[in-house]
Amino acid sequence: MIVVMKKSATKEEISNVEKMLSDLGFKTHPITGEVKTVIGAIGDKRQVNMQSLSHMPGVETIVPIMKPYKLAGRELKQDPTIVEVGDVKIGGREIIVMAGPCAIENEDIYMSTALEVKKAGAKILRGGAYKPRTSPYSFQGLEEEGLKILSRAREATGLKIVTEVVDTRDVETVASYADILQIGARNMQNFRLLKEVGMIGKPVLLKRGLSATIEEWLMAAEYIIAEGNPNIILCERGIRTFETATRNTLDISAIPVIKELSHLPVVVDPSHAAGTWKYVNSLSKGAVAAGADGLIIEVHFDPSTALSDGPQSLKPVHFTQLMKELEPVAHAVGREI
Amino acid sequence: MIVVMKKSATKEEISNVEKMLSDLGFKTHPITGEVKTVIGAIGDKRQVNMQSLSHMPGVETIVPIMKPYKLAGRELKQDPTIVEVGDVKIGGREIIVMAGPCAIENEDIYMSTALEVKKAGAKILRGGAYKPRTSPYSFQGLEEEGLKILSRAREATGLKIVTEVVDTRDVETVASYADILQIGARNMQNFRLLKEVGMIGKPVLLKRGLSATIEEWLMAAEYIIAEGNPNIILCERGIRTFETATRNTLDISAIPVIKELSHLPVVVDPSHAAGTWKYVNSLSKGAVAAGADGLIIEVHFDPSTALSDGPQSLKPVHFTQLMKELEPVAHAVGREI
Amino acid sequence: MIVVMKKSATKEEISNVEKMLSDLGFKTHPITGEVKTVIGAIGDKRQVNMQSLSHMPGVETIVPIMKPYKLAGRELKQDPTIVEVGDVKIGGREIIVMAGPCAIENEDIYMSTALEVKKAGAKILRGGAYKPRTSPYSFQGLEEEGLKILSRAREATGLKIVTEVVDTRDVETVASYADILQIGARNMQNFRLLKEVGMIGKPVLLKRGLSATIEEWLMAAEYIIAEGNPNIILCERGIRTFETATRNTLDISAIPVIKELSHLPVVVDPSHAAGTWKYVNSLSKGAVAAGADGLIIEVHFDPSTALSDGPQSLKPVHFTQLMKELEPVAHAVGREI
Amino acid sequence: MIVVMKKSATKEEISNVEKMLSDLGFKTHPITGEVKTVIGAIGDKRQVNMQSLSHMPGVETIVPIMKPYKLAGRELKQDPTIVEVGDVKIGGREIIVMAGPCAIENEDIYMSTALEVKKAGAKILRGGAYKPRTSPYSFQGLEEEGLKILSRAREATGLKIVTEVVDTRDVETVASYADILQIGARNMQNFRLLKEVGMIGKPVLLKRGLSATIEEWLMAAEYIIAEGNPNIILCERGIRTFETATRNTLDISAIPVIKELSHLPVVVDPSHAAGTWKYVNSLSKGAVAAGADGLIIEVHFDPSTALSDGPQSLKPVHFTQLMKELEPVAHAVGREI
Repeated sequence: MIVVMKKSATKEEISNVEKMLSDLGFKTHPITGEVKTVIGAIGDKRQVNMQSLSHMPGVETIVPIMKPYKLAGRELKQDPTIVEVGDVKIGGREIIVMAGPCAIENEDIYMSTALEVKKAGAKILRGGAYKPRTSPYSFQGLEEEGLKILSRAREATGLKIVTEVVDTRDVETVASYADILQIGARNMQNFRLLKEVGMIGKPVLLKRGLSATIEEWLMAAEYIIAEGNPNIILCERGIRTFETATRNTLDISAIPVIKELSHLPVVVDPSHAAGTWKYVNSLSKGAVAAGADGLIIEVHFDPSTALSDGPQSLKPVHFTQLMKELEPVAHAVGREI
Repeated sequence: MIVVMKKSATKEEISNVEKMLSDLGFKTHPITGEVKTVIGAIGDKRQVNMQSLSHMPGVETIVPIMKPYKLAGRELKQDPTIVEVGDVKIGGREIIVMAGPCAIENEDIYMSTALEVKKAGAKILRGGAYKPRTSPYSFQGLEEEGLKILSRAREATGLKIVTEVVDTRDVETVASYADILQIGARNMQNFRLLKEVGMIGKPVLLKRGLSATIEEWLMAAEYIIAEGNPNIILCERGIRTFETATRNTLDISAIPVIKELSHLPVVVDPSHAAGTWKYVNSLSKGAVAAGADGLIIEVHFDPSTALSDGPQSLKPVHFTQLMKELEPVAHAVGREI
Repeated sequence: MIVVMKKSATKEEISNVEKMLSDLGFKTHPITGEVKTVIGAIGDKRQVNMQSLSHMPGVETIVPIMKPYKLAGRELKQDPTIVEVGDVKIGGREIIVMAGPCAIENEDIYMSTALEVKKAGAKILRGGAYKPRTSPYSFQGLEEEGLKILSRAREATGLKIVTEVVDTRDVETVASYADILQIGARNMQNFRLLKEVGMIGKPVLLKRGLSATIEEWLMAAEYIIAEGNPNIILCERGIRTFETATRNTLDISAIPVIKELSHLPVVVDPSHAAGTWKYVNSLSKGAVAAGADGLIIEVHFDPSTALSDGPQSLKPVHFTQLMKELEPVAHAVGREI
Repeated sequence: MIVVMKKSATKEEISNVEKMLSDLGFKTHPITGEVKTVIGAIGDKRQVNMQSLSHMPGVETIVPIMKPYKLAGRELKQDPTIVEVGDVKIGGREIIVMAGPCAIENEDIYMSTALEVKKAGAKILRGGAYKPRTSPYSFQGLEEEGLKILSRAREATGLKIVTEVVDTRDVETVASYADILQIGARNMQNFRLLKEVGMIGKPVLLKRGLSATIEEWLMAAEYIIAEGNPNIILCERGIRTFETATRNTLDISAIPVIKELSHLPVVVDPSHAAGTWKYVNSLSKGAVAAGADGLIIEVHFDPSTALSDGPQSLKPVHFTQLMKELEPVAHAVGREI
């Protein structure tokens, strides 16, 4: 940590800050510049709320040097984490595609879609039973009945299933059906929920919050790993910006940034990023070429009647076409799909 | 709802859309322009996911005409809601100030701060027992022990208390101690939690999400009102932007916008908006002059040792000074404080 | 400047960086932490592109310590700058209101509006002769003919005039008519134009760019001062965010931030921030209470026929009312209006 | 255009709006809903400032139906524009790579870099002679001397050259040296400059503004085309968001959005988007796979000594490697490079 003192700081103020740092267990190294003094403070004290020092007279600003995440970072674990869901491996050479409708609406439509995405080459089936919806008047999901449909779809297709959990009270139930628990963007900083999925131990798909920085996203992962669960798949799904041509702005740079900062695999959700199916093909190819470990794509048998996220869902025919087009792109960057 | 058809839409596509709208229960009114056709669709069908129609061939875009919120909006309820917390009224002529530390750290410091904010003129005492923290290594709050301290501070000062609830499993416990339940920014779209505080019936302080639009914020309020609880105080606390000189950007325009769109009272949290105590005085006066119904301000007996949000906490001496300076500002806009 | 080395940096990499810094004229102070080494580099070398050092092997990041602006900052000049426009002083005890239509459309309407804003208490008259418009098909301004109308309005009212210049080729012409030259938001980083208005020496109203950080805004001011012109009035006019309820988001925190970082006066443009006249009253009061040195407000005799910015223009009756309501607010914060 | 009337609008207010629209030359089609009335107004009146109607009593909001751009849009011109720069064609099957240093610093370094990028497969050479720099103390470019170096580099390599113009007064000079005139992000809404490059007729590389919407970007292109110059290459270079891990956020979705809305070619600048060379490889591949027509990449012979943008410049060895890796990606999406 570096404490930058104001130009106007007195000698006494500087020595008070040094004393405080020393009392907190840091070794201090003051550097007197031509204009300002900065104090280097050595020691990694995560439990100390260092920003509070900014209240001391003469302090201009505090500059942290260490990353705030530890277990989610590359510094302690160099080799990439591969999350294993049965025989499906996320983070390895193979690019894994997860697909399916936003919400499970009824068994027939769901099964039809599931069979189509399986045929097209998806390895994991998605579908929401508990739906976080902006409006209380929108369809809120079939809840446990939805989980049962998911379970039957797994049997019918052999695909693994990923589904969202939105309440600490449901974690056990959802975990008893799902292969991967999804934490949605709106719950990325629902820290209690993060702790619960950390304790349950199953693989977690952790979506980036609507306006979460990459650092906050890794800190959310840190909550889960700190409970003993390192099986985390990060999911970039677009961030909120001023641009309205798309529902969100896909932050494709998050892929190389995560690869540099963390050992966790990262997948991309082009459907929520774009908000319209027309751009999903382009974004999916871009994500794979940029280094994503997988994709999660909304596919619906009849999007114009979907109760949730219809506009951004691909029809099976377009999904099948996309899967074909992704193959050479994956090969071009040395991956399989 | 208005459906805008593409320039290239065929007659058949237009009539298919008309038929679909009609099947969904809308009356349709097509308008054939020089370049494009638009179809007006009459009928307020909240349960229909109209955006899914954008999948129909020839459709360019869907323009909703009705606001998505109903109970939180001004259209159905013109007169302003006054939330009563015992004899404290929020949304009336009096501007209500809530103050206290971010987190309850220990009883002595908390009591000292409580007595100071009472003396300075605050009407409601704040303090967190369950803390949502970005890092799992930060102080997470005293939990129920904190609620007990809060309760004793209420007895000692006669102030009402507001405290945050972060988990559906804690709603009953927190409600048994608190006068106002706070929903934090990170939980603004934790819809299960919104429903629970809706059912419990106590006044709710609903903070705006870090990057929530005003419409989404009112939809969150709608979740609570839809459960039968209209006692909601909206709290603007800054939004996330590119500017880093402040922790967040206080969206002061949210005050007149909310006053136009909703009947609910709105208070401002200048502490979280600024992220540094130095700007709290200026922002508090600005908020009151712009029409806020109250303020919620972080005050700590010794901010440089605070375990949470020290940099943005006022010392009691500065808070007392601020309260004095707010009085003429309140009078200037026809309010009391 | 602080150079943070990677955890994996070798001794040789560290000494190479020290050598490079030394060659560039810095004194170096390495601090070896438990995990990382940081190197303090003393010396204020503005002409060195220090960020390029990040290319050296082993370097993690570069942290600047000095503010990049010098003449616009508080560190070298503590007392506030008062910009004098004849007998009108901006930055002193009096809050100065500038008002008038967005664009000068014709002499009659302009004169009528000018007389009204004068009567209501404005001290400076605004009006655009060269209009930067998003669309090439929109009204682009009367150009020099507009400047002549402005000039006659000055004679008729005795008010000072402020008008925008958008092209280096027009600076002399505009300066021969105007009392204050306005640099619009879209030209805040038109560095050639900044240099020209710096050389011409007349007072400059420097609007903040649509998404300029406060630091970039002060750097734009630095361009003007560096040419010898310190008569700069900063103008906060809203920044671009995700929120669409207002045209821009008024960053009211910019007022106390500028007061801390700079000696220059700061005024607020609530009209462009809000984008709709309904919120101008609330935002104007908020800005004055928060410490703004003035306001610039769009007023139009008949906004529903305005060729530019009609929706955000006040009618004279509302402007007159606002001026009355601002008086007690100004007094409440120890200012005159 | 659709005018939405308030729920509370009276019959008289509705008929006043109808009358006004009719006076402005629109045909009106009122639709009376259960709650609100909307008025469809037919006629494409670009010269009318329709938003001003929002001032009329009873009006809630105005919804435009037509795109504001005409010549830059797909509706009037379906087939993609191919910009020809001698024998180099941008917007066709071949992906065109432009490369070179940010600024021309001296002839030796520039020539060395130029020869390397030529060898690696770039078709167009970049280099700035007039540099828009955030700080007045930074290197501002060699001006006409730089253009001469560029010109000699063209002779030596046979590559076409692209360079930025920042002042209306320089357009003729720059155009006499350059093959493509670049409009930088900070000048995207310098409308006078847009008109000048429109009149000069040479190909223009139009960078997206730091926080320009895609619509505003196309409107900037419209300014150039409206002067008779359709040879525009759009360049996505990252937008400003809250995320600080990268200098800007590459908006990769802009590629498919532009392809849908416009006939103009679009290239991507991964260097300015990322702000650090480490992410350029990943972003370049992502952009090509997503459908970009080209790339513009900063390459410098010795980035650690670069006077501008060193951190984001690739060394020739990394650029050569990238060009090799781009080939299979281009083929995977049916393109050449």
